[in-house]
Amino acid sequence: MKIGFIGLGQMGTGMAKNLIAAGHQVTLYNRTRSKAEALAGDSATVAETIADACRGEAVFTMLPDDKALAGIVDGTDGILENLSKGALHISSSTISVAMAERLAASHAEKGQAFLSAPVFGRPEMAAAGKLFVVAGGAEAAIEKAKPLFDAIGQRTFAISEVPKGASLVKLSGNFLIASVIESLGEAIALVDKGGIDKKAYLELLTSTIFGAPVYQTYGGLIVEEKFEPAGFAAPLGKKDVDLALQAGDALNVPLPIASLLHDRFLRLLAHGGENLDWSAMGALAAKDAGRQN
Amino acid sequence: MKIGFIGLGQMGTGMAKNLIAAGHQVTLYNRTRSKAEALAGDSATVAETIADACRGEAVFTMLPDDKALAGIVDGTDGILENLSKGALHISSSTISVAMAERLAASHAEKGQAFLSAPVFGRPEMAAAGKLFVVAGGAEAAIEKAKPLFDAIGQRTFAISEVPKGASLVKLSGNFLIASVIESLGEAIALVDKGGIDKKAYLELLTSTIFGAPVYQTYGGLIVEEKFEPAGFAAPLGKKDVDLALQAGDALNVPLPIASLLHDRFLRLLAHGGENLDWSAMGALAAKDAGRQN
Amino acid sequence: MKIGFIGLGQMGTGMAKNLIAAGHQVTLYNRTRSKAEALAGDSATVAETIADACRGEAVFTMLPDDKALAGIVDGTDGILENLSKGALHISSSTISVAMAERLAASHAEKGQAFLSAPVFGRPEMAAAGKLFVVAGGAEAAIEKAKPLFDAIGQRTFAISEVPKGASLVKLSGNFLIASVIESLGEAIALVDKGGIDKKAYLELLTSTIFGAPVYQTYGGLIVEEKFEPAGFAAPLGKKDVDLALQAGDALNVPLPIASLLHDRFLRLLAHGGENLDWSAMGALAAKDAGRQN
Amino acid sequence: MKIGFIGLGQMGTGMAKNLIAAGHQVTLYNRTRSKAEALAGDSATVAETIADACRGEAVFTMLPDDKALAGIVDGTDGILENLSKGALHISSSTISVAMAERLAASHAEKGQAFLSAPVFGRPEMAAAGKLFVVAGGAEAAIEKAKPLFDAIGQRTFAISEVPKGASLVKLSGNFLIASVIESLGEAIALVDKGGIDKKAYLELLTSTIFGAPVYQTYGGLIVEEKFEPAGFAAPLGKKDVDLALQAGDALNVPLPIASLLHDRFLRLLAHGGENLDWSAMGALAAKDAGRQN
Repeated sequence: MKIGFIGLGQMGTGMAKNLIAAGHQVTLYNRTRSKAEALAGDSATVAETIADACRGEAVFTMLPDDKALAGIVDGTDGILENLSKGALHISSSTISVAMAERLAASHAEKGQAFLSAPVFGRPEMAAAGKLFVVAGGAEAAIEKAKPLFDAIGQRTFAISEVPKGASLVKLSGNFLIASVIESLGEAIALVDKGGIDKKAYLELLTSTIFGAPVYQTYGGLIVEEKFEPAGFAAPLGKKDVDLALQAGDALNVPLPIASLLHDRFLRLLAHGGENLDWSAMGALAAKDAGRQN
Repeated sequence: MKIGFIGLGQMGTGMAKNLIAAGHQVTLYNRTRSKAEALAGDSATVAETIADACRGEAVFTMLPDDKALAGIVDGTDGILENLSKGALHISSSTISVAMAERLAASHAEKGQAFLSAPVFGRPEMAAAGKLFVVAGGAEAAIEKAKPLFDAIGQRTFAISEVPKGASLVKLSGNFLIASVIESLGEAIALVDKGGIDKKAYLELLTSTIFGAPVYQTYGGLIVEEKFEPAGFAAPLGKKDVDLALQAGDALNVPLPIASLLHDRFLRLLAHGGENLDWSAMGALAAKDAGRQN
Repeated sequence: MKIGFIGLGQMGTGMAKNLIAAGHQVTLYNRTRSKAEALAGDSATVAETIADACRGEAVFTMLPDDKALAGIVDGTDGILENLSKGALHISSSTISVAMAERLAASHAEKGQAFLSAPVFGRPEMAAAGKLFVVAGGAEAAIEKAKPLFDAIGQRTFAISEVPKGASLVKLSGNFLIASVIESLGEAIALVDKGGIDKKAYLELLTSTIFGAPVYQTYGGLIVEEKFEPAGFAAPLGKKDVDLALQAGDALNVPLPIASLLHDRFLRLLAHGGENLDWSAMGALAAKDAGRQN
Repeated sequence: MKIGFIGLGQMGTGMAKNLIAAGHQVTLYNRTRSKAEALAGDSATVAETIADACRGEAVFTMLPDDKALAGIVDGTDGILENLSKGALHISSSTISVAMAERLAASHAEKGQAFLSAPVFGRPEMAAAGKLFVVAGGAEAAIEKAKPLFDAIGQRTFAISEVPKGASLVKLSGNFLIASVIESLGEAIALVDKGGIDKKAYLELLTSTIFGAPVYQTYGGLIVEEKFEPAGFAAPLGKKDVDLALQAGDALNVPLPIASLLHDRFLRLLAHGGENLDWSAMGALAAKDAGRQN
């Protein structure tokens, strides 16, 4: 397929590489042009403008937040004005439910298709083409995007017939990961102060009933206190928990653990956590217990 | 080995059966005698008294809480007075850190060995001999108990050289499970009210980064709202979270999620949750959101 | 002084009456015109448009939230376009810190003066001219507004030289009131279930170290379970706690009690609390304890 | 009246002085004898033993916790064995509901009367005879103790016909004070980081709807960061919040703010707060916001 790809951060770069490797013709756009040039080749060209990236059957966007995505979508040079009728915008960014709803309406007005297709997985998984794709939108659009999703991920879940459904699921998933970080942080602080070896403890947990990647990955980071460089930075983690809380507000669903996480992230940011991985939240319990500075 | 086994509830029955099946000579004691009789056979006899169960090389206890265990251990008819010098008491109950410490000291005074060896796994896993054993105590005692642990479990973790270490780890593990119940309850309430199919959602979570038994088991119970009969009753769940909080108090380790869980359990119990599985806590978020009564 | 007054809800009506009674010439504007007509008389006239209310030395606004205030301020018919150079806009609404900041800048651009002057006190106090005025803005503007504040309140606090400072203080105050509602609700649920007479308990508290109006007022409402009609409706209470949380977010200040209150309000709204007084939050603890339905 | 007084800490010393000044014959007992000797005079003698302090019509106890009180009450030298039939034990300590219940039963068995009569007020108020007495027990016993209560306090509240009722009320009151400390701490951290003068802010609060001694006293300590010497030490504050939580547990009443306070106190103690006033908890919010070390 002939597609565009906008947003070549850590995640986007891996995804774009795999789309190119799968044989698709990809026009790459990135604010910092050098990142696009690094991927250019036979079947990959660098776009001068956003509009250049909108001339194919589909355009992917992978941006850090609502605001960055709006900057790419709106305006005369934006996706809405330049994408062909019938073509498809696939947003893989983790965005708010409200933003997904707004984009669905705006694209429909223009006769364009829109999917919200956020992904689970850290940069290593993006590079390996092993992401999990959570797709929301019309069945036909998901069907059309299938070969693209196959290139970037190991499995696609068509979780909702409306784009905002996929965004909600993705936000809830990030909330669950943050819950694991905090609860693991508390448990590790407790057993560590009680004289148990932290590594052996994590090995026990992940060899038994907590044998999921999320415990292995984040437990490892907490035990090693390895919070830099950030695979997923604390401000992004806070943003997603906040968006889950906003979704809860809109639906009148109280989320007490999410509220607690919000406060924890805020404290992390008030103490220089801007550039740390979000798993650094898992070190706060040890700090409260007087085990770390 | 010639051993005793005291406490034939849901978990104890499965464990005792597997010890018998592995060829050990087991003397069974249970307050309600009929449960012991149901297991009697060639290599399994029914004890008249606690003392009768203490005449072998080792005696297992599997009781619901500190108080029940103290009732078996103390007094002239209890384990402390009747276990031979050099013999081993293996406590598989989930008990407080303070109780494990007290028993270690009391048994040492009598020249007896003591292990705290709580297990992870629900009744089905006990029946199948697939428990995970978390053992704390002297290396030699753990070595001696190895064939017994092999009969009841799929793997043994020698996590600490003192019994209380194993109790702390077990309590922290139950705290982590309860954290999963609550956070899943919140996430499910959120996406459900947002129009997502709960079963498909759980399937997505457990097929991706949350692919651990704990998410499958408890997620399934929450999605199905199947809280009876209780595999692990809410008052026991509350007890363990409270014991984790007590351990945190003794060590000056604040555990904010555990505090939140404590309050949730209390509310469940104030509304008739005595006989429900502890996963019923995962339905409170849906209640708060107005989705259930 | 010749002034305008916009927003004749429960609070605004009391304030406007006292301004009129103090001898000021007041032009009244309200979306539902009848409320303005009810106050009309010798020194009070009804405005046809917002612009009509902007022809004096100052214009008060008393609206329920940022959005309603923006609807009055912006646009060709709004305050910004119609207030004379050098004239003063006094916003007594409880608005966000961000909104106060935005209005300060917009009015400065137009050569107009702006004060954020929210008030503490319920409708009875507004009617009696006994409000407390929390004023933020340039000293000269506060001085000029002094006779107006004297008409509506018993005391004025010039708390900040920037308008947003007064808004922050007001939001923090409403957060503190909500904290009293929740903590009193918990305490009353506890002693009530413990067999203590609730009225006698409140009398004890307010006769001793909790002898402040806030305990008398909200304690009385909780004890009597008198949540209708709302003196200050739950959605407004939630809005203010949310704005305090937003201010905390902007400044990196975690507010764990505010987060807890947010969740409580959300639960109240999910169960039909839209029209109840915000003190109805104080009944949730009794519900959790199984004392109420 | 001829009475005994046991427990001459900061609070007890002030109370005993006022009982002596009111003309009662007081026999004083304190573990550290010198504190009793300091008060000795015409109508005040120093007891050699606890039993010596039990020979009058009534004996007061003012101890820091359940354990200290039990050490005075139990044993052959204790109050239970030595107080005359018909005489009265007045416990002014802040003790657990369970302890009050146990003492009521034990004294009844011995034909002795028992009142739980904890007090509100800090050391200055004890010295000035201005305490508030919260009395629980039989009406006749409260009537008999009236002249004693009049000597130590400005008002007595006969809040319950059972001793444990008064203990519950006292614990709930200390929980409410701790709630004020924490919520004030959060509010002050917020406005301070927002550029508002802390002293002016507190003056505003306490001059308006928060004009209660509890806001003046604790607000002042938080604003001045004056946490030493401790009027009421953090470990005692934690103890009382924990006893309120225990009372809630026994009655199935979740107290989410109390749980939050428990965690805050624990963190304070993990960072050297043993000797600080409990109002030091009100500085944690500022720490979380990065305003203090």
